[in-house]
Amino acid sequence: MSRIYLNAFDMACVGHQSAGLWRHPEDQGHRYTDVRHWVELAKLLDESGFDALFLADVLGVYDVYNRSRDAAVADAAQVPVNDPTLAVSAMAAATQRLGFGLTISLTYEQPYQLARRLSTLDHLTDGRVAWNIVTSYLESAARNLGLDGQIPHDERYEIAEEHVDVCYQLWESSWEDDAVVRDAERGVFTDPAKVHDINHKGKYFTVRGPHLCEPSPQRTPVLFQAGASPRGMKFAASHAEAVFVSGPSPSVVRKTVDRLRSAVAEQGRDPRSVKIFTMLTPITAETSEQAQTKLREYEELVSVPGAFALFGGWTGVDLAELDVDKPLTYADVDANRSALASFTTADRAWTPRELAGFVGLGGRGPVITGSPTEVADELERWVDEADVDGFNLAYVTTPGTFADFARWVIPELRRRGRVPEHTEPTTLRERLGFPSPRLAPPHPGAAYRRS
Amino acid sequence: MSRIYLNAFDMACVGHQSAGLWRHPEDQGHRYTDVRHWVELAKLLDESGFDALFLADVLGVYDVYNRSRDAAVADAAQVPVNDPTLAVSAMAAATQRLGFGLTISLTYEQPYQLARRLSTLDHLTDGRVAWNIVTSYLESAARNLGLDGQIPHDERYEIAEEHVDVCYQLWESSWEDDAVVRDAERGVFTDPAKVHDINHKGKYFTVRGPHLCEPSPQRTPVLFQAGASPRGMKFAASHAEAVFVSGPSPSVVRKTVDRLRSAVAEQGRDPRSVKIFTMLTPITAETSEQAQTKLREYEELVSVPGAFALFGGWTGVDLAELDVDKPLTYADVDANRSALASFTTADRAWTPRELAGFVGLGGRGPVITGSPTEVADELERWVDEADVDGFNLAYVTTPGTFADFARWVIPELRRRGRVPEHTEPTTLRERLGFPSPRLAPPHPGAAYRRS
Repeated sequence: MSRIYLNAFDMACVGHQSAGLWRHPEDQGHRYTDVRHWVELAKLLDESGFDALFLADVLGVYDVYNRSRDAAVADAAQVPVNDPTLAVSAMAAATQRLGFGLTISLTYEQPYQLARRLSTLDHLTDGRVAWNIVTSYLESAARNLGLDGQIPHDERYEIAEEHVDVCYQLWESSWEDDAVVRDAERGVFTDPAKVHDINHKGKYFTVRGPHLCEPSPQRTPVLFQAGASPRGMKFAASHAEAVFVSGPSPSVVRKTVDRLRSAVAEQGRDPRSVKIFTMLTPITAETSEQAQTKLREYEELVSVPGAFALFGGWTGVDLAELDVDKPLTYADVDANRSALASFTTADRAWTPRELAGFVGLGGRGPVITGSPTEVADELERWVDEADVDGFNLAYVTTPGTFADFARWVIPELRRRGRVPEHTEPTTLRERLGFPSPRLAPPHPGAAYRRS
Repeated sequence: MSRIYLNAFDMACVGHQSAGLWRHPEDQGHRYTDVRHWVELAKLLDESGFDALFLADVLGVYDVYNRSRDAAVADAAQVPVNDPTLAVSAMAAATQRLGFGLTISLTYEQPYQLARRLSTLDHLTDGRVAWNIVTSYLESAARNLGLDGQIPHDERYEIAEEHVDVCYQLWESSWEDDAVVRDAERGVFTDPAKVHDINHKGKYFTVRGPHLCEPSPQRTPVLFQAGASPRGMKFAASHAEAVFVSGPSPSVVRKTVDRLRSAVAEQGRDPRSVKIFTMLTPITAETSEQAQTKLREYEELVSVPGAFALFGGWTGVDLAELDVDKPLTYADVDANRSALASFTTADRAWTPRELAGFVGLGGRGPVITGSPTEVADELERWVDEADVDGFNLAYVTTPGTFADFARWVIPELRRRGRVPEHTEPTTLRERLGFPSPRLAPPHPGAAYRRS
């Protein structure tokens, strides 16, 4: 019986992936500006057995639907959105075990500064931080950062390859393990002979070094990635230690998982060592009936324009031009067929309104509604059929969805041996099943380690 | 009797401005990687009556002395150094009143991202954040960030002018005060008509907007600045709400203060509205004799190479080439006369060894040693003679210097009416004596406010 890993999926914003649900009287999403909100959430997740809090991010607004950002703004659909890294130390100070997965785009940052921020967080969290490597997908972000439009997709990944390579050098090879000696007698805090320049001169970056930070518990943070395109999957196969996937059914997700594990193996890495999380929204209560009642209550609050705004941002497809009740054809969305397919089972046609219902509550994954045993059964089915290692649990209301899951489902998963009874404080890398706090060969980052 | 403002001056590193003092058995500087260290420090400062914790930063190492970074590395003189912004939320969650002044260089960052980070911190601290605007002074930093060398000094300030102008637009004019309505009835979280693009197209930056963040308590964080050059002073006169100066005697500092207040007046701003802090290291104990004993104990631990490393980084002058016991002449340091003058009274010649003693304990300011009444007398003399509003208190050991000052001197300052008995939780801007949490005219940032 394998362990099931659980991430709470959230974002430093009012409404992450449940369009319109901020109107629910119990939703606390609007408290995202309050440090106490994050401390309370972290404690809830830590005490109940979640493995990590995973925070998404964007650097622009969703303005594809109706060629306007109005729907996203009115519905607080991922706007306003604060920086995801800055509440982490408050949450770390209040917890001992919870990991923190942080989405940071490398497209608009220098590796020297980004590497320092992550090293600092790895120190402050005692080694509980992960970097979700993204290259940004919004045109609107590019126009906020001095560009006329996005850098072409595959070139973004070329930049990403060099960027992470610079980070590996800073994290793994600039400071030797025993560089810091703190020898008051000799008057040597750090042995200068054990701190090295990296002298990187590449196509996109020039960085002399040394790294500004002494070695942190994990050195390289745990590396998360979510690329679904062929180029994105190649990147994930080389670099990622955990990968996020999504799809509406185990069979759809299974195809992605099989391709991904093969790609990992082609890179000479153990395909089981990469933890794969699929997205899912759980709605649960003591009984099946109570859970179904909740679902209906939630469904009434979904905002169709808000859902279309999210869908437009993710896929580039503007549903405003289509009849909401007429089934979509691939011709409607020809420009972005694969993006649409990832939302649907692709075995039947969806109307825009049906899509809104899907996106509005679950984002890019399915909604699983039921009693604790029903939800646990369904999670186990997903693990078996889709061959995933765990779940990114999206919320309908926050912290309501997480609190319900913690109260009802995690105890059931414990009874089934899927979640451990007790977890020792360790680094996040160890918590995710890796044998050491550090990157290990054949991961490309480990190649920079000095023996 | 005017209020005296007190900042604790620190940095996310082992040794900030007391070279070699990490060897003192009570020093806890090496705990800078531990979030608990920062939470304990913040509580101490908050409960004892400090106004703010001010954190310095650099993006490179000190490698002018002996044309090598070895002295800085061995002595942990500002290397290793973590990102100063990331422990703030943990400190904010543990305090209600303390402000946080954060040094962030704008030379290597896009304003769109930097503005979001500061807005996020202003939210998470309930309006207690200040930005110490710097343009970076280390060649070594430039070579870590893709440049062959530093951008020329005055051009750095041209970039800075445009950078802060973009930030003001994002902070002050992108979101109207009443944009966020959270009207569940109408289904409107934010009124889209009240969120605006900024459409900035300048020489250095292109930013469409809107700002990603909803209005934070202060909108624009309190603006700190420390430029001592003519161009730096012009920048401070336009933008700064608090300015950091330094010098070894009240008469030397007074000249800077007079020039600065005149420059502020020339910009049409009230010269008294800008709070001026001078740097100073207090060594205190219950009695004068005990304080003098501490001083001698500290002096024995000063690292001369560490002090020379700091001095070289700040001034560009390599003291390794000179006889440590031969008085310096201006010819020795011709390249950077004004930098040297700011360290000394300029009315006598110093030897490099004497300079090391000065820099090694006090950084760029004097050491004041004595009983609580002696130190309080000396602070009052500085306020009167130098016309400053307060002090950046540097440490010899951390948190020892701050704890001693909190225990012995602050109660004495309270008795004299220089520190209030009780402080209500407010924004940092209000705590520093400004009438509102927001920037007010004629500050240039206030010009972007919508009525």
